[in-house]
Amino acid sequence: MMQQQSETEIPFTYRRAIFWADTDAARIVYTGRFLDYMFEAIESWMRAYIGTDWFLQTVDEKRGGPIAHVDLDFHAQVSPRDTLDLRVFLERVGSTSVTFRIEAYANATTHAFTGRCVSVGYDYEAGGKMPISSERRQIMEDYQKACGENQ
Amino acid sequence: MMQQQSETEIPFTYRRAIFWADTDAARIVYTGRFLDYMFEAIESWMRAYIGTDWFLQTVDEKRGGPIAHVDLDFHAQVSPRDTLDLRVFLERVGSTSVTFRIEAYANATTHAFTGRCVSVGYDYEAGGKMPISSERRQIMEDYQKACGENQ
Amino acid sequence: MMQQQSETEIPFTYRRAIFWADTDAARIVYTGRFLDYMFEAIESWMRAYIGTDWFLQTVDEKRGGPIAHVDLDFHAQVSPRDTLDLRVFLERVGSTSVTFRIEAYANATTHAFTGRCVSVGYDYEAGGKMPISSERRQIMEDYQKACGENQ
Amino acid sequence: MMQQQSETEIPFTYRRAIFWADTDAARIVYTGRFLDYMFEAIESWMRAYIGTDWFLQTVDEKRGGPIAHVDLDFHAQVSPRDTLDLRVFLERVGSTSVTFRIEAYANATTHAFTGRCVSVGYDYEAGGKMPISSERRQIMEDYQKACGENQ
Repeated sequence: MMQQQSETEIPFTYRRAIFWADTDAARIVYTGRFLDYMFEAIESWMRAYIGTDWFLQTVDEKRGGPIAHVDLDFHAQVSPRDTLDLRVFLERVGSTSVTFRIEAYANATTHAFTGRCVSVGYDYEAGGKMPISSERRQIMEDYQKACGENQ
Repeated sequence: MMQQQSETEIPFTYRRAIFWADTDAARIVYTGRFLDYMFEAIESWMRAYIGTDWFLQTVDEKRGGPIAHVDLDFHAQVSPRDTLDLRVFLERVGSTSVTFRIEAYANATTHAFTGRCVSVGYDYEAGGKMPISSERRQIMEDYQKACGENQ
Repeated sequence: MMQQQSETEIPFTYRRAIFWADTDAARIVYTGRFLDYMFEAIESWMRAYIGTDWFLQTVDEKRGGPIAHVDLDFHAQVSPRDTLDLRVFLERVGSTSVTFRIEAYANATTHAFTGRCVSVGYDYEAGGKMPISSERRQIMEDYQKACGENQ
Repeated sequence: MMQQQSETEIPFTYRRAIFWADTDAARIVYTGRFLDYMFEAIESWMRAYIGTDWFLQTVDEKRGGPIAHVDLDFHAQVSPRDTLDLRVFLERVGSTSVTFRIEAYANATTHAFTGRCVSVGYDYEAGGKMPISSERRQIMEDYQKACGENQ
């Protein structure tokens, strides 16, 4: 099984296969799993666009992106019958933080949930918040423009 | 190991032991786990005060409390070194929904996170939202008063 | 992101991206996650070869494949730096049970772990074990042969 | 909610409350969760008897107990209706490794599963296996005797 990724797909979309482990006794995906899915989508975006992820940042760069806030609004249930596409948007690129917004669609058409996540740049060696580098900021702003957001 | 539960403790507090499985490569609790902890605290409150939980509601009563919204604001990191107490508040008792608020404290003093969760009464047989029974509403309103909230 | 699956790939291989949520404080994948990965690989095989999964079996067919046994032997650590390929083998196709064996390789070359899982056919309506249908048995035996196992 | 722990209880027993998040679409506890429960029981034993856990060992002592092997045999299903007691045994205390055995009982009487886990002492600084200290070995052998095992 290979993953083929279209980097020209805008917005970046992370397709998550849904498995037995994801279900609960209501025979749908357990609510708490959607937060994991959201983080998986964000890391997939980071790998595709920034060439890094939270692990590489934390362990190699001694920097990280701890999460200051998340919120999720659920619109429709999802089960292993469905394909789930998580579309990644950068809602806000601040001086030291990024707000990701995920719009998740089941079977390409049903809006399953909207999630938001504020990740704050943090320097583990110096201790304290860390500004986003100009290189990464440029990539993020270009991505925002490509998505038609924040113009 | 026995669990002794003081039902007179106000607000109801769920103490969560933190294990290896809860950690991440930053050597703190993985952010996504706090949502699980929050749901565990809510179910523990339901068992203590309402005598039911999401499983019994869904499977036996054919009713449920699907989650319409969650949000979490993180204030401090937590690790297996810490004890974590999740204090359960009922922020709002609506006609068909309840808003739980969790205030989580590490080592009784450090405010680790605030979480909110809106659970909507749902009738799986009839389909559609379901009003909260007057008996359960009374219990919830009494609990709110005991917590000094929503007066 | 699209998944392109080569059904002629023998043995069937499930590639699992590794995320932050999968890590632990030793900065490797948490041991318990490998059991989840194993189940994901087995379900992916079932979807590709049998056209079903545990959810469809349980909810639609009222049959299931409860797990009677699992074992895992760990040979090498894995982190988000690695790609992880789980190769699915059918070690034994019994009258009512199937023994799956997973050989997991990091970066195509490092043998990360071997897992085994015995799934027992179960009829939720009649109650009790259920023989594997002749159609499914044929598919499984053909797959075993293609893998060069159990000849 | 307070946890009261009887250290004189032999074998050491970890009582695990079961929550909605633990369930699957068969309306029982998801098989993969039992491995997490087993690790929780082992760490609870370590905290009670050795005064440490995998986190403290890894981060503070720069030593760890990576898992070389696990196996689980499932005898009965468990749901949130049940209380689950995990009894911890030390099946074998080798020169560098310990084999834990967990006997899990639902509602004190139904044998739900047996799990085994081989944890290997590892020195993260020097690299390589590490003998169990004589102090810890004594505690473990005393515990084995108290449990009536390995005499």
